[in-house]
Amino acid sequence: MQIQPLIIEPIGIIHSPYKSLSDIPIQGNLNKKTEAYAELSKNYKDGLLDLDGFSHAILIYYFHESKREDIIGRPYLENQEHGIFAIRSPHRPNHLGLSIVEVKRIDDNKLYFACVDMLDGTPLIDIKPYIKYFDHNENVKSGWLEKHFK
Amino acid sequence: MQIQPLIIEPIGIIHSPYKSLSDIPIQGNLNKKTEAYAELSKNYKDGLLDLDGFSHAILIYYFHESKREDIIGRPYLENQEHGIFAIRSPHRPNHLGLSIVEVKRIDDNKLYFACVDMLDGTPLIDIKPYIKYFDHNENVKSGWLEKHFK
Repeated sequence: MQIQPLIIEPIGIIHSPYKSLSDIPIQGNLNKKTEAYAELSKNYKDGLLDLDGFSHAILIYYFHESKREDIIGRPYLENQEHGIFAIRSPHRPNHLGLSIVEVKRIDDNKLYFACVDMLDGTPLIDIKPYIKYFDHNENVKSGWLEKHFK
Repeated sequence: MQIQPLIIEPIGIIHSPYKSLSDIPIQGNLNKKTEAYAELSKNYKDGLLDLDGFSHAILIYYFHESKREDIIGRPYLENQEHGIFAIRSPHRPNHLGLSIVEVKRIDDNKLYFACVDMLDGTPLIDIKPYIKYFDHNENVKSGWLEKHFK
């Protein structure tokens, strides 16, 4: 299997009220009151056109504070080990994070959003519209996590 | 805004029955019958542990056939232009793709899945469990797409 490395250029930076990992509340992503914003490089400003017609967006970003890469890890919810691709830990190959956030408004090159669970200064790599016809599934089974949300 | 480029090393390759873009059916992602598999580098095999407890997974991959980067684009569903961050076009900054797929089974370093909408040979960058408590939203509004799914 021959695979070339790729070079990724962040499209902007996330400005979040969370300055350190311990500031981020558990399920910060369900908190609709705290706001953050993504500041895009000026040349990407027009890329935000019509995103405010969507209630939610998918942010892909870089876990810039993670310095290690686990193959097996423990999630914060339990002490049990799982494969890194069965948890959302930042200590993963390529250190990419993904959050579904609530779109609040666009102002010039800034996207304001709620459901914040990332650190201040996080490099942003992509924004995609959350599309219920593709991204919203019925009859979802959530593996080892189910027991924590009963 | 100072942002460093990042180097990404694909974790594997997607083997799909779709050999060219014209093979991919519209809403291939809703097709539960066609299967593909992600073949991970051997060293990442253990990262799949427990992923088969989840009904769905999020795949992040590289649109390796896209050679251009648009800021404004037209989606395949209509002739209207939208910002690149309001559509799912491959011709986007950093060329990252994201699909939510149905987990079928794991066999050694291979993850078999349905809801395939990517090309054969696509470099895979990350796999995350789809977690309904984080990724499944109610009262979703899907902007310009709504009119195409009435």
